[in-house]
Amino acid sequence: MYKGIGASPGIAVGKALLLKKEDVVIERKSISDELKEQEKFHQALGKTKEQIEEIKKMTGEAQREILDAHLMILEDPELIGGVEGAISSEKINAEAALQSVIDTFVAIFESMDNEYMRERAADIKDVGQRILMNLLGKELPNLAKLKEPVVLVAHDLTPSDTAQLDRENVLGFATDIGGRTSHSAIMARTMEIPAVVGLKSITQQIKSGDILVFDGEEGLVLVNPEESVIDQYTKKRAYLLEEKQELLKLLHSDTVSKDGKRVELGGNIGNPKDAQKAHESGAEGIGLYRTEFLYMDRTALPSEEEQFEAYKAVLEIMGKRPVVIRTLDIGGDKELPYMNLPKEMNPFLGYRAIRICLDQKEIFKTQLRALLRASVYGNLKIMYPMISSLEEVRAANGIMEEVKQELKQEGKEWASDIEVGIMIEIPAAAVISDILAKEVDFFSIGTNDLIQYTTAVDRMNEKIAHLYNPFNPAVLRLIKLVIDNGHKAGKWVGMCGEVAGDKRLIPLLLGMGLDEFSMSAGAILHARKQIQSLSYEEMKTLADQVLQLGTAEEIEKLLCR
Amino acid sequence: MYKGIGASPGIAVGKALLLKKEDVVIERKSISDELKEQEKFHQALGKTKEQIEEIKKMTGEAQREILDAHLMILEDPELIGGVEGAISSEKINAEAALQSVIDTFVAIFESMDNEYMRERAADIKDVGQRILMNLLGKELPNLAKLKEPVVLVAHDLTPSDTAQLDRENVLGFATDIGGRTSHSAIMARTMEIPAVVGLKSITQQIKSGDILVFDGEEGLVLVNPEESVIDQYTKKRAYLLEEKQELLKLLHSDTVSKDGKRVELGGNIGNPKDAQKAHESGAEGIGLYRTEFLYMDRTALPSEEEQFEAYKAVLEIMGKRPVVIRTLDIGGDKELPYMNLPKEMNPFLGYRAIRICLDQKEIFKTQLRALLRASVYGNLKIMYPMISSLEEVRAANGIMEEVKQELKQEGKEWASDIEVGIMIEIPAAAVISDILAKEVDFFSIGTNDLIQYTTAVDRMNEKIAHLYNPFNPAVLRLIKLVIDNGHKAGKWVGMCGEVAGDKRLIPLLLGMGLDEFSMSAGAILHARKQIQSLSYEEMKTLADQVLQLGTAEEIEKLLCR
Repeated sequence: MYKGIGASPGIAVGKALLLKKEDVVIERKSISDELKEQEKFHQALGKTKEQIEEIKKMTGEAQREILDAHLMILEDPELIGGVEGAISSEKINAEAALQSVIDTFVAIFESMDNEYMRERAADIKDVGQRILMNLLGKELPNLAKLKEPVVLVAHDLTPSDTAQLDRENVLGFATDIGGRTSHSAIMARTMEIPAVVGLKSITQQIKSGDILVFDGEEGLVLVNPEESVIDQYTKKRAYLLEEKQELLKLLHSDTVSKDGKRVELGGNIGNPKDAQKAHESGAEGIGLYRTEFLYMDRTALPSEEEQFEAYKAVLEIMGKRPVVIRTLDIGGDKELPYMNLPKEMNPFLGYRAIRICLDQKEIFKTQLRALLRASVYGNLKIMYPMISSLEEVRAANGIMEEVKQELKQEGKEWASDIEVGIMIEIPAAAVISDILAKEVDFFSIGTNDLIQYTTAVDRMNEKIAHLYNPFNPAVLRLIKLVIDNGHKAGKWVGMCGEVAGDKRLIPLLLGMGLDEFSMSAGAILHARKQIQSLSYEEMKTLADQVLQLGTAEEIEKLLCR
Repeated sequence: MYKGIGASPGIAVGKALLLKKEDVVIERKSISDELKEQEKFHQALGKTKEQIEEIKKMTGEAQREILDAHLMILEDPELIGGVEGAISSEKINAEAALQSVIDTFVAIFESMDNEYMRERAADIKDVGQRILMNLLGKELPNLAKLKEPVVLVAHDLTPSDTAQLDRENVLGFATDIGGRTSHSAIMARTMEIPAVVGLKSITQQIKSGDILVFDGEEGLVLVNPEESVIDQYTKKRAYLLEEKQELLKLLHSDTVSKDGKRVELGGNIGNPKDAQKAHESGAEGIGLYRTEFLYMDRTALPSEEEQFEAYKAVLEIMGKRPVVIRTLDIGGDKELPYMNLPKEMNPFLGYRAIRICLDQKEIFKTQLRALLRASVYGNLKIMYPMISSLEEVRAANGIMEEVKQELKQEGKEWASDIEVGIMIEIPAAAVISDILAKEVDFFSIGTNDLIQYTTAVDRMNEKIAHLYNPFNPAVLRLIKLVIDNGHKAGKWVGMCGEVAGDKRLIPLLLGMGLDEFSMSAGAILHARKQIQSLSYEEMKTLADQVLQLGTAEEIEKLLCR
């Protein structure tokens, strides 16, 4: 039995296929025929390109993006020029020149502050390895065509490994290295393949043909277990698949409690593709469109046109269903290198989100223009993040008015009934939500930040992780206050933090009167099923009980009994 | 007229004395007689030591500490060894060797993350300059004996310059460089000498003998103004001195409003010396003793005995008056290098204060032992910082119980009536203050952090300084909530953040029913005078009005009209 990190849920039961990669030693050799080395290098580049194009044909869209990135690396002039230069100036063999250039690139990317850039190091390593193998005339394992269903076991899976995985025959995978946010873990979740990563030395402990059994949620891997255990997992697997089928029947049903209280289940998305997935997963709307992804992983601000297209696409996918688009929420842990944001001692308490937008008005205006122009294509609601005062709401609305005047002069149209709301994620906003409710159309409670600020606990800080607790009584009181204040002013109140999709808290939130729950696509049908089984009146009583309690522990006990 | 930074309040009117320091050029020369250079260097060290000892005799205690630090630098083996090594290995003259070693030391200290260490760079530069002058046989200006009262003007004042200032004859000083927290500014405030710093090029604009006039609060310096202006400042100076005399009459009077509402004015202190000053400034108690200063600027944790002596000293100074001692509040921006605290992305939302104490119990127990043992010498109240939940209060009290059991077994005594309270500085604590009030003896509201967390604004971050606002309506509502919840449970409620001493907010806090106001010593008599002039009933009405308002701007307007 081996303990790793559950990276992608689901049960895997099957024969192991151990993926062993050759360790190659690159000798650094002086060469005399420089031209020949250059030619060898370019041939290897060409072959690599062909292979990646080939893999691309067999894969889904998410993987295709990665492979496109790999193709771009293959054409990177700094990489090609670097290798050519090393061959000609140092008179060394192509293999050694390539290895040295790749190592340098990887070291640079790995040392970057930005997590996204750090992860790009894996792509460069991956492409470099493929070129090298082609230079050496060796073959990389082909994962695209497997003869029988297997559980893959590998030291690590590279981006191109996962991209070409034979989805029919890979029952799951287990790797020595990696964490929940490593590339292979993310891909496993996207492809819905059960996976356990970070198993340290599993490749040394098992051999191909061993029977492996694991639950990708728990992270436990069992090798050659007893028949009864295999049975048990096989049954659980069947049950989970059946449950999934059962849930799919709820796809088009309403989210209504046993006693007739209706709520809305929305999806949290980052791009039009996510919207499609949310739509297909039963979302009755989009509760949070994080527009910052439009601004990330690029070298300059997105144009109005680009933004317009993205917003329009999401609105069109959702049709008449509401789509809450949050204006730019960068800063904090989300950096944009090209904006030269200041280094801050406490970025979570710093220059971010609406604070940047009110300070750098042109960026905000471009986004508002794109939003207003897109509004005619669906049911748009605009939401400002990180509001801490009424002054900020008024300032943002003032800029919106300016933008409308400009559009009017240009003869451009926008929907007349756009609701404008705010995130409630800063304690100050919750405390004066009665005042704010009079000047906005809706609230959406962002629990991740609300917990963080209310308890003064950085949710990324492992040293104090035990203090970051969604059952914190102060946080729950503020949530209730916000819902009540919204309703008193006749406004609807949603929630788009992780708590909204947490089955332990959904009963409480229903009882508190929350109108809209927005969550990741995968949680929507589970939430619908749960709410359909609950009585609103009983949950109101539960909520009253919870709000009497003084400690998170008591609250958790009551809610999870 | 020149605009600088007001660094120390008070009016200065007088003749300028321009302090010019010679620029010396150090030539790097090859030497043949190494021994002679070593000897020269040690002679200069000896002479420097004599000079500093001489200055030390003429100064007050605060300055003496600085001079002791300078004497320690003179004996630093790395410094001495560094210079000796440079002379012998590079065969260069002592002056060049010294300059190079000092430059390296200064660069290292200036690059440190820790503000305290960065400031030490000034001390090293200062000592280095003095040794250098002695090597060159030149004299440094002597500020200890001035012939007549003057306003000193200098590019900068070094720590040893300020240490030897002739307090009788220095009416004030003005410098080219420095900020409100620079060494010279802090010394000016300690010595109660009016000062303006950061004037950029004042030393080039004026000459000795010019008449200078300035107000150390505003930071404006006037050179050779008209007679009428001199008159005006002279009158203002006389008025301020008179006001000071007037205030002194209130030293032993009670802090009671016009209509008989009595409150307590306490002092915020960092050590026994501050307690003495607070006592002499009319403090009716100590509202906040920041014990972390006992832990700072040293290489290891303070022993129980050391702590015991410090707590006992403060308790004895204050006699029967209450002394609220806050348990260790490190972390955040207050680092202790020897504790190896983790580097955090958001230190203000991190591992600090009670979180450290509950995690590293031995450190906490040592402090609680010292506190309990000292309690028999006065009227001690113990306060836990950074409380965000009832669980933390119970855990801290549990450790206190353990410590009492230990002391009991050892036959040691403690006062039976020690009150135990908490800081309210995290929004969660304010929101559940009704629950917390049942298990503590008092609250003290820490407004600096409460504003910071409630509005998610790092108070040190200049980019968003406009959002850090004590008039924020959400913060004021939380303060009112805490006071009301404390009173409902029969507990007293104090405040020890900067707001407590802010004359614009004192009327509001009185009206809200705050029981204790704790502030820096210099503000106490001003606050007493102000409160004696206010009607509690009227202020209650004012507080009701303020709590109806939705924006900081409206609130500030009402309070500052």
